Amino acid sequence: MILYQYHPSGNCYKIRLLLHHLNIPVQLVDVNTKAGETRTPEFRAKNPIGKVPTIELEPGVFLAESNAILWYFAEGTRYLPDDRLLRARVLQWMFFEQYSHEPYIAVARNWISYAGIPAGKEVELQERQEKGYMALDVMEDELRQKRFFVGERFSIADIALYAYTHVAHEGKFQLVRYPAIQAWMDQVASVPGHIQIDERISL
Amino acid sequence: MILYQYHPSGNCYKIRLLLHHLNIPVQLVDVNTKAGETRTPEFRAKNPIGKVPTIELEPGVFLAESNAILWYFAEGTRYLPDDRLLRARVLQWMFFEQYSHEPYIAVARNWISYAGIPAGKEVELQERQEKGYMALDVMEDELRQKRFFVGERFSIADIALYAYTHVAHEGKFQLVRYPAIQAWMDQVASVPGHIQIDERISL
Repeated sequence: MILYQYHPSGNCYKIRLLLHHLNIPVQLVDVNTKAGETRTPEFRAKNPIGKVPTIELEPGVFLAESNAILWYFAEGTRYLPDDRLLRARVLQWMFFEQYSHEPYIAVARNWISYAGIPAGKEVELQERQEKGYMALDVMEDELRQKRFFVGERFSIADIALYAYTHVAHEGKFQLVRYPAIQAWMDQVASVPGHIQIDERISL
Repeated sequence: MILYQYHPSGNCYKIRLLLHHLNIPVQLVDVNTKAGETRTPEFRAKNPIGKVPTIELEPGVFLAESNAILWYFAEGTRYLPDDRLLRARVLQWMFFEQYSHEPYIAVARNWISYAGIPAGKEVELQERQEKGYMALDVMEDELRQKRFFVGERFSIADIALYAYTHVAHEGKFQLVRYPAIQAWMDQVASVPGHIQIDERISL
């Protein structure tokens, strides 16, 4: 099994983290997203959406979108509840992550710490910061009442939200004012099987 | 069961469309999103993310995020495959919809046909148009080879993508150059149980 990835990407880290928890080996193949390698016809044959992470489950069988990949591996495991409403609740938080969190926190991080702020995007960066803080406010409110996002258990909803939250400082987000998020991050990092985003573990 | 909604929203239409296919009655309660009614403490007690659609499954039990709600109702029905890979593939296209399609096509539509273009956002609108066309290109390529997005069957992946694609002209997207998308839209609209976005069907 091959994970096509860009190592610093939180979306790619999600997959490595879950697979490590599940003890499922995967080969990492780095794709140079900056050089446009995800936009080539060869890569689009793997993933028409042209993005990493993309996983090759068996030769020629590909799956894309980080949270869809998480779901694929988590079904039937302790990382996804059996209850119908709790499963939908996991998806609720994963769609929140992709729509209301990642476009602000991950993009701000990428511009500030990796790719550079594109010309003329200074105002947009400020807006993304504001919306990123709105996402963190939602998380803080939620985590004031619970240890994990769904069903009082560590699940892929936590993995999805942890990926970019725990490196939000690289997007100049101050997490000091979010004690519940900080306690939750400590909880996530203490679940046995945890790995860091920069670990290049060979599975 | 109560659907808190804004009627012209494609995200809200998704839910009405699936529930109509499933013959599940629901009470519609319109929320004035423009007046900030989704951001009040009362509404946030229903949905901490502060958005519509939000559904009240039973008194006091709420679920948010349009595609999570689709999943909740589709599990165990013909609108979601049983196969593990096909299910993840449905999620792949639903996450594509929320990350790479809706923020461009739905937002352009809203600015152009409903809310008005916010001051200073003309360049951003142009960028959103370009990215919207990139999403339509991906869909066209995919639909050249298949009738529906997943497993050659109408599923919630089609419902999720149909919602804003079929009203993309309201965001000034030209669909003339997308024959495969047009054929697919005809297919979706011809599935028995279909309703239009502006129908105010009382279920």
